Amino acid sequence: MTKLLLGPGPSNVSPRVLEAMARPLVGHLDPAFLAVMDEVQGRLRGLFGTQSELTLPLSATGSAGMEACLCNLLEPGDDVVVGVAGVFGERMCDVASRIGARVTRVETEWGTALDPAAMAAAVARVRPRVVAFVHAETSTGVCQPVAAIAARARQQGALVVLDCVTSLGGIPVTLDAWGVDAAYSATQKCLSCPPGLSPVSFGPRALERVRGRSRPVQSWYLDVTLLAGYYGAERVYHHTAPISMVLALAEALRIVDEEGMEARERRHREAAAALLEALAPLGFEPLVATEHRLPMLTTVRLPEAVVRRGEAALRRELLQRHGIEVGGGLGKLAGAVWRIGLMGENARPACVTRLLAALRDLL
Amino acid sequence: MTKLLLGPGPSNVSPRVLEAMARPLVGHLDPAFLAVMDEVQGRLRGLFGTQSELTLPLSATGSAGMEACLCNLLEPGDDVVVGVAGVFGERMCDVASRIGARVTRVETEWGTALDPAAMAAAVARVRPRVVAFVHAETSTGVCQPVAAIAARARQQGALVVLDCVTSLGGIPVTLDAWGVDAAYSATQKCLSCPPGLSPVSFGPRALERVRGRSRPVQSWYLDVTLLAGYYGAERVYHHTAPISMVLALAEALRIVDEEGMEARERRHREAAAALLEALAPLGFEPLVATEHRLPMLTTVRLPEAVVRRGEAALRRELLQRHGIEVGGGLGKLAGAVWRIGLMGENARPACVTRLLAALRDLL
Repeated sequence: MTKLLLGPGPSNVSPRVLEAMARPLVGHLDPAFLAVMDEVQGRLRGLFGTQSELTLPLSATGSAGMEACLCNLLEPGDDVVVGVAGVFGERMCDVASRIGARVTRVETEWGTALDPAAMAAAVARVRPRVVAFVHAETSTGVCQPVAAIAARARQQGALVVLDCVTSLGGIPVTLDAWGVDAAYSATQKCLSCPPGLSPVSFGPRALERVRGRSRPVQSWYLDVTLLAGYYGAERVYHHTAPISMVLALAEALRIVDEEGMEARERRHREAAAALLEALAPLGFEPLVATEHRLPMLTTVRLPEAVVRRGEAALRRELLQRHGIEVGGGLGKLAGAVWRIGLMGENARPACVTRLLAALRDLL
Repeated sequence: MTKLLLGPGPSNVSPRVLEAMARPLVGHLDPAFLAVMDEVQGRLRGLFGTQSELTLPLSATGSAGMEACLCNLLEPGDDVVVGVAGVFGERMCDVASRIGARVTRVETEWGTALDPAAMAAAVARVRPRVVAFVHAETSTGVCQPVAAIAARARQQGALVVLDCVTSLGGIPVTLDAWGVDAAYSATQKCLSCPPGLSPVSFGPRALERVRGRSRPVQSWYLDVTLLAGYYGAERVYHHTAPISMVLALAEALRIVDEEGMEARERRHREAAAALLEALAPLGFEPLVATEHRLPMLTTVRLPEAVVRRGEAALRRELLQRHGIEVGGGLGKLAGAVWRIGLMGENARPACVTRLLAALRDLL
C-alpha cells in the first residue's frame, strides 16, 4: 500500500518524479546534466520571485539551507534579530549563536503571527546585520507577515533572511518584491519531491556582504562564493552534486510550472478549507486565526476523545491500519495539536476524504 | 544510451538501486523507514570495520562528511596535522583553517604516498588534537599507508580522521583495527549508489572529545551529538532524512554484502590490472608506483598523441560519440593525466573492453 503522507513533509510525489529518480546516472559535469541544472536554477528563480543569479539547489536538506544563509552573512560578533514563533525560529537562534552572532529574539505566542512593529522596534534598537524569520512556520501553521517585516528591516540597513521551507510551491514567494536578501526552502514539502535538496537564493546585497567579510565563511561546504563557481557560468568542480535528486527536482518543478502558481495556490487553499470543514464535526478546531492560517499545513487542537485515547497511539493506528501519516505537535505544542499537511500533490479533495473516512473508522 | 561512467565518480548503479530510488515515499519517522535506517547503519559498521554506534549516512555529500569530522573534533586554536598528497588533503586544510584550527601540513609529491615517518615527526613536534589524511586520494590514485600513520598518531594522543570516500566498498576499510577515530565516505564511488549521502563513523574517543568541547560545534546541521538523537535509539527529530537516497543506499549495501568484500576487492584489482594492460599499447602509463596504486581509480600519464590532440577535446569526444566518461587531472595534474575509475558496478572486464574499443576508434 502506498502511504498517504499528510504530515508536515515529506508529501507524496508524482510518478513522473519517481521515474526521474530512477534514470541511469550521468556525470555531474556532463553537459547533459549541466543543462538540467540550468533549467532547475531558472525554474527556482521563477518560483522564488527573484532575478538573483545565485539561486540553486543546495546539496543537503532544508536545515542546511538555513545554516547556509546565516553562516554566509554572519560573522562572530555580528548582531542578528530573529523572529521566534515556533521550532524553526528557535532553530535559527541556535544556528546563529553557534556561528558566534549575538542573537536578539523577538517572540510571539506559538500559533500567532509575529508583530511587525515589535520586529521593527528591535531592529531600530539593535541595528543588526541580519533580520531572520520564517515565512510558513511548520511547527504552528502560521503564515508570517513578510512584506511588513522585511521593509522595515531594510530601512534600517539590515539584510533579510527568510525561511521558505514550507511555503515555496504552495503560496506565492516574491523575494525581490519583498526585499528579501537570502532565502532557503526544501524539496519535500509543496514541491512534492523527495527530501535531500535545499533550494536557496542569495541576492546582490547578500553577495556584496559575503565579499566584504573580514574572515572566510566558517563552512567550506556552504560557502556561496565557492558554490557560485560550480553553479555559475564556469562550472568549476566544488563537490559532486546529488545528480538523481536534481533530476527529480527538475521534474517536480516542471509539474509546478505546468500548473502555474495561481492555480496551485487556489488548490492548496481549497483543500485546506475542505479539511477544516470535514474535521469540525469530529471536534478538531483550528489553532490559528483565519487571517494567519497557512493553507498547506493545518494545525488542529485535538478533541477530548482523541486526547483520552492517546493522540500518539491514534496516529500510529492511522498509519498502521489506514496507511495515513499525520504529524504530531512539536515542542510546546506536543500532545496538544496535530499538524496535517496537504502539500503539493496531496492538496486534493481525495486526500481529505480518505483521511476523514479513516478517522471516522477509528474514532 | 546509458552512459558508462569511468571517471572518479559517480559510477554506474545497479538497476536494483534505481528501483529503490523510485519507491513511493514513506515518512522519515515511519517505523518501516527507521528499520531500513537501522539496517543501513549496521551494514555501514560492517563495511567500515567498526563497532562504533554512531555510524550513519550523513544527509549531504562526501565533502560535508569531511567537514563533519573536522568541525566536531576541532575548536578554534586547536592544532591539526594534515597529510597533503592531492586535492582532498588540500581541502582538509581549507576546511580545518575555516574552523579556526592551526594547520600543519605534511606534504608529499602528488602521485606518491605520504611518509609515515614524516607524519610521525610532525605529530611529535606539534602534539595536535587531530591527525587527518586521505585513504584513497581521488586526485592522484594513491593508496596511503593508513595503519602506520594512525598508530603513531595515537601513540601521541591524537585523534585520527580518515577520508574513505573512494576506498569504501572497493578495498578493505578497518577503522577499529587501524585505530581511526572518525571517518567519512560517499555513496557514488565503490558503493555504486547515486551521490547525495556521506557515510560517517565516529568512535568512542571521538565522541568523548565532542562531549568535552568548550564551545558548541559550529554547525548545527553537522553536530554529531544532535545527529545521535535521530540515528540513535531515541529517534528524536533533527532534520528530514533524504528518504529515497537512504532506500537506495540500503539496496547498494545489500549488493556489496551479497558479494562480500573479499570477492569485491579481487574484482577491483583484476579490473585495474586489465585496464593497465589494455592501455599500455596505446602509450598510457601509470602515474603511481605499483605498491601504492589504487585499484578503483587509475591515474595514467597521457601519450604524446593525446596531448597533441588536446586531452579535454578527446574526453569530450569519448563522451559524445561513445557515451563514456573518464576524468581529467585535478589541480597540479590537470592536463597531464586522466583518472579512470573502475568502481563498484564498473569494476568489470566489459568496461575495459568498451573503453579500449572507443579509444582505438578515436586515436
